[in-house]
Amino acid sequence: MTSPTPPEAGVEAAEFAVDPAFLTGSRPLASLGLCDALLQDDGRWPWIVLIPRRAGHTEIEQLGRDERSLLMDEIVLAGAAVRAMGEALGRPIDKLNVGALGNVTAQLHVHIVGRRRDDVAWPGPVWGVGVARAYEVEAREAAQAAALGVFIG
Amino acid sequence: MTSPTPPEAGVEAAEFAVDPAFLTGSRPLASLGLCDALLQDDGRWPWIVLIPRRAGHTEIEQLGRDERSLLMDEIVLAGAAVRAMGEALGRPIDKLNVGALGNVTAQLHVHIVGRRRDDVAWPGPVWGVGVARAYEVEAREAAQAAALGVFIG
Repeated sequence: MTSPTPPEAGVEAAEFAVDPAFLTGSRPLASLGLCDALLQDDGRWPWIVLIPRRAGHTEIEQLGRDERSLLMDEIVLAGAAVRAMGEALGRPIDKLNVGALGNVTAQLHVHIVGRRRDDVAWPGPVWGVGVARAYEVEAREAAQAAALGVFIG
Repeated sequence: MTSPTPPEAGVEAAEFAVDPAFLTGSRPLASLGLCDALLQDDGRWPWIVLIPRRAGHTEIEQLGRDERSLLMDEIVLAGAAVRAMGEALGRPIDKLNVGALGNVTAQLHVHIVGRRRDDVAWPGPVWGVGVARAYEVEAREAAQAAALGVFIG
């Protein structure tokens, strides 16, 4: 049961792992080409977080040029998934909000949030507004299925 | 003084123009490959707004794939310019914040904002916080020069 390859004691780059801070308020949704996609467990907004699987990254500029293009592709894909979540929840969105902040959790990540003119924070941003309202199980499953329909195609 | 060319009555796509809403709180800084770069006239944060020169666009997904890669390049370049502004103003930044919201002004645009742990909104986002504090002329000129040094190279 031991590995046939020697332990990689000399590996310089730390291995990528999603910062545990993300796992308290969100759920793994899909593994895309560059990013892990998480569903933010906050029924107030359809909301996906993309985390590039690159250890130690905190800014977009640390990605290579091809990785940045891939990140852009996945932002657009996640936008379509967020739209689909809004439709599935009976609250189609009016606007996408995309943000890479990282002031609270440093690990590089991008928020893709579906906004409506009647949502509680409109027209302000959603970050730091009130307290997350976890989905009811049925709604969360509907949102997940809608997002996966876009990601898996 | 009349134009020698006939009026373009048959042109389908409207011509691009920066939404006047941006011009009250910001100043033209540079014309990049895809975007007009504006300096946000708010001394609280070094802050650049990028506006892709595409008429009628409100979401990133409306850009073609090559345009999106170019936008990403310009976001990274604007990030370097924002860092240089922070240095020039004697307040080097700790974190870049990148956001494409468009809830207030619909025309597609991306904010690149330099944040410090001691700034008035940290760790929350800057959008909608308090009232803009216009730069003193000297500081604004220093910030502009620093940003242009990055954009022009």
